[in-house]
Amino acid sequence: MRIDIITVLPEMLTSPLSCSILRRAQDKGLVEINVHNLRDYTTNKHRKVDDYPFGGEAGMVMQIEPIDRAISALKAERDYDEVIFTSPDGEKFDQPMANSLSLAENLIILCGHYKGIDYRIREHLITKEISVGDYVLTGGELPALAITDAIVRLIPGAIGDEQSALSDSFQDNLLAPPVYSRPAEYKGWRVPDILLSGHQARIDQWRYDQALERTRRLRPDLLQE
Amino acid sequence: MRIDIITVLPEMLTSPLSCSILRRAQDKGLVEINVHNLRDYTTNKHRKVDDYPFGGEAGMVMQIEPIDRAISALKAERDYDEVIFTSPDGEKFDQPMANSLSLAENLIILCGHYKGIDYRIREHLITKEISVGDYVLTGGELPALAITDAIVRLIPGAIGDEQSALSDSFQDNLLAPPVYSRPAEYKGWRVPDILLSGHQARIDQWRYDQALERTRRLRPDLLQE
Repeated sequence: MRIDIITVLPEMLTSPLSCSILRRAQDKGLVEINVHNLRDYTTNKHRKVDDYPFGGEAGMVMQIEPIDRAISALKAERDYDEVIFTSPDGEKFDQPMANSLSLAENLIILCGHYKGIDYRIREHLITKEISVGDYVLTGGELPALAITDAIVRLIPGAIGDEQSALSDSFQDNLLAPPVYSRPAEYKGWRVPDILLSGHQARIDQWRYDQALERTRRLRPDLLQE
Repeated sequence: MRIDIITVLPEMLTSPLSCSILRRAQDKGLVEINVHNLRDYTTNKHRKVDDYPFGGEAGMVMQIEPIDRAISALKAERDYDEVIFTSPDGEKFDQPMANSLSLAENLIILCGHYKGIDYRIREHLITKEISVGDYVLTGGELPALAITDAIVRLIPGAIGDEQSALSDSFQDNLLAPPVYSRPAEYKGWRVPDILLSGHQARIDQWRYDQALERTRRLRPDLLQE
């Protein structure tokens, strides 16, 4: 898989892309992540990528020309499954979407910034608008990282123990059951006896019951799907 | 405002915290963000913070002791409004929650990792569990950054043009209307004539109509609240 991220803040992505699973997946050759500075695609001598909005309004707008040039340059090299833009009014990002994007070969993620991007970009150049949640962030860089992390960790081999991803929350429409580790008692707070019992079948049943009870209480909507 | 982030991957947070709005807000003294390496709070000579789960299961669990020590050390210095843990089964993070957290004085955000954290931490030490969305990430670091970004940019003075934050999506339960910038025509794609008309009252009405139409079509749930 190859992911191309277009941003005005390439330096913001440096540390998350060079840590943990994302780093290991790149080292193993499972994914190639390229960060492109949008300013490299301006013809403007000040490398400016934004301008005032038409109709007068607070905030600056990312212009269509450098973005079109950046996307076109990438598309000239290879085919892309999706050209993604992250926006609070996009389609909601969730685990099924992460699963499906993890099967893609080539993805572009465009990070918005400032007040927004020229709407013609969204109409003509973007194939998928994704929202990571109902909150407003300074730019699309953190959403791009979240999407990248969520999908890359699903690529076989990216995380050490694949069983671990399969039992994550949402993969079976159930929240994960509580987990505990040593010590069995800490400040008087004890681990549930069942987990210390050694009866694997009863432990598995307890975990399933807990997962179901937590899902019913906290996220009944997951059970209705 | 002060935000303390506890993590096993402090190096992952470096670049996002030193860019853009988060950097400027810290430079201006509007927020102090401290990243704490959880491994500094172990008594274990290998600085280990995780162990196998009780009851046998794939994945490792973050242990209670170092986390309790880290949180206790911070709480001994000052009062905290919330001790936040990010988890896919937490309360959904949204703009009203960001608004309310932006009024806090001191926040702790604990980043989970591995298969999860010992559930006793969630029962006894955490005051607020937040989910940034229905997807699974490698750790709580990106969610902690998203929460930090969403709330810090709401602190007066953090973003240059406060009007810009007020007209963001969600702040009035409406999605933002389309924005456009120069050129007025690009590859035959034209900016709507109304925005070039100079009639400010009609432009404002158009924007409101567009916001309402987009919200009705894409997110009718926002209008029912």
